[in-house]
Amino acid sequence: MAESIHLSIDAMSGDHGLKTTVDAALLALAVDPRLHLALVGDEAQLRAALGRKSSARLHLRHASEVVAMDESPSKALRNKKDSSLRVAIDLVKSGAVQAAVSAGNTGALMATARFVLKTLPGIDRPAICAPMPATQGCPYMLDLGANAECSPEQLLQFAVMGAALATAMQGITRPRVALLNIGEEEIKGNDTIKAAAQLLQGSGLNYTGYVEGDGIFRGEADVVVADGFVGNVALKSAEGAAKMIRDFMKAEFTRSSYTMAAALVAKPVLNRLAARIDPRNYNGASLLGLNGLVIKSHGSADATSFANAIAVAAREVEHDISGRIRSLLAAAQPAVTA
Amino acid sequence: MAESIHLSIDAMSGDHGLKTTVDAALLALAVDPRLHLALVGDEAQLRAALGRKSSARLHLRHASEVVAMDESPSKALRNKKDSSLRVAIDLVKSGAVQAAVSAGNTGALMATARFVLKTLPGIDRPAICAPMPATQGCPYMLDLGANAECSPEQLLQFAVMGAALATAMQGITRPRVALLNIGEEEIKGNDTIKAAAQLLQGSGLNYTGYVEGDGIFRGEADVVVADGFVGNVALKSAEGAAKMIRDFMKAEFTRSSYTMAAALVAKPVLNRLAARIDPRNYNGASLLGLNGLVIKSHGSADATSFANAIAVAAREVEHDISGRIRSLLAAAQPAVTA
Repeated sequence: MAESIHLSIDAMSGDHGLKTTVDAALLALAVDPRLHLALVGDEAQLRAALGRKSSARLHLRHASEVVAMDESPSKALRNKKDSSLRVAIDLVKSGAVQAAVSAGNTGALMATARFVLKTLPGIDRPAICAPMPATQGCPYMLDLGANAECSPEQLLQFAVMGAALATAMQGITRPRVALLNIGEEEIKGNDTIKAAAQLLQGSGLNYTGYVEGDGIFRGEADVVVADGFVGNVALKSAEGAAKMIRDFMKAEFTRSSYTMAAALVAKPVLNRLAARIDPRNYNGASLLGLNGLVIKSHGSADATSFANAIAVAAREVEHDISGRIRSLLAAAQPAVTA
Repeated sequence: MAESIHLSIDAMSGDHGLKTTVDAALLALAVDPRLHLALVGDEAQLRAALGRKSSARLHLRHASEVVAMDESPSKALRNKKDSSLRVAIDLVKSGAVQAAVSAGNTGALMATARFVLKTLPGIDRPAICAPMPATQGCPYMLDLGANAECSPEQLLQFAVMGAALATAMQGITRPRVALLNIGEEEIKGNDTIKAAAQLLQGSGLNYTGYVEGDGIFRGEADVVVADGFVGNVALKSAEGAAKMIRDFMKAEFTRSSYTMAAALVAKPVLNRLAARIDPRNYNGASLLGLNGLVIKSHGSADATSFANAIAVAAREVEHDISGRIRSLLAAAQPAVTA
């Protein structure tokens, strides 16, 4: 715990920008004494947002441009070489920090990270990976949206990376790896899934077969592999259903004076429940497969939520995720690039 | 309301078979005086399950075989010509009943329905469609798993059928039709989705663009179109998340004597909430695109849930869904088969 951890923060990123990222940085510094944070963004605006608040472990790094949330990834990459997003990743590349955290435009973040850091040997394209809540455990799911279409080989690469993450971060020696599919029987699914299943069977990973959408949240696997289209739909649909249930619950508990009194009585229970399904506690997705660590926060994150993404970055540095994936890939090389 | 409605029930189907389907049939008959039900299955077993219970509107129809839940669809179709599933659909074909309800093997049900009833003119393959709970409205989603891969033209056909269902069943004159995608920006998604978007824009339907997984449950569209792989993953992921939240809620409310007392106080609220998200209230998916109506119940349905699927069948008969889709397709023909 004595070691220091250096991170860059894309302070201009996210739907709420500086207002959220600065508070989140201070929150994270207060909680974790190992942290040293480089806040990247417009220096004048950073100073204004900080006001009198400061920390010896907080550094400002000026960047003159900002990538908009709806900006084209290729244009951002080409035209904004001094954006807070780009500079935060450049700091990883130069070794000044060990990981970058951004709540910015996913496409631009992915394109920039890939361009600046390059992918690890044996990895065609990086994937977005995050832990999901589940009745049992906390499975990692990937890809969550970086790659709309994937080859069987890419799905195998995702499996290797997800397994490395589960082992390093959750201490699971032989994580159960499953492919997201529409049925557990061999006959279902499409050709890509079937070919990926064959690759996984021969991979040396603890491949346990197919899992359906509901199986993710029962914790039937430690690592759930899908292409970015299907993974994103699974994630967003689950988030949407959870949000709908929270809305229904709120509506029912505010319906009358009786229900509002019931809500007061049930408050400790409801708070515990809320904490278990609060998406803020799951914020912080990993861009896996790069020569360096980059963590993506939800664009809509508040300070608590963004601070959680910073904590994820710190834990990934602590567990040397990039190094571990690199060694696992080297060991699995023949299968992965077959 | 005076008109009578005749349905066949695949009484041997589902995880619980006769025990569920017979009770569900009696439940449905008690609620809806228009209903006449043909219970299809092993006659001796049917009589035993009924015991002394009976109804003048309940008829038994012997079928000597049963399609197992995990049986290969093609084998079931080829070898089991006297299965309860097949006979229930044959009764639709012959005009003896107006719709069939089964909780059986989805693949076998789909293959058999397609073989016996044939698809409507302009429809390549039938799709599975069901209403989803949402904060606003109750959107229909299709395909939920019949077709793992779909062409843009098929997605357009699904859109036409889903819109017909929303108009007929929910009285929405110009239902908002959206494509399930991983982003709302034009740049995202795969080639099939982009081509389908172009077809929909020229279709005359009220096409409103892309919707993400979470948008389904916010009710951003009245009809959500996806291929069967993506649609099934969205459905199952949402179901899984909802089930997980119910499990968490139960665990939190049974944690201590205080929380159990709180649960008692909150019981009326929790019951109302439970009813709003109870999957049993959404049971009954439509196999759309056939010359005849077939309703698929969840395999795990209990009697209440299966009775809901029977009620869905009755409403679809009442609203002449098959006829309406046929007319809409005839009107949209040039675009649909372009």
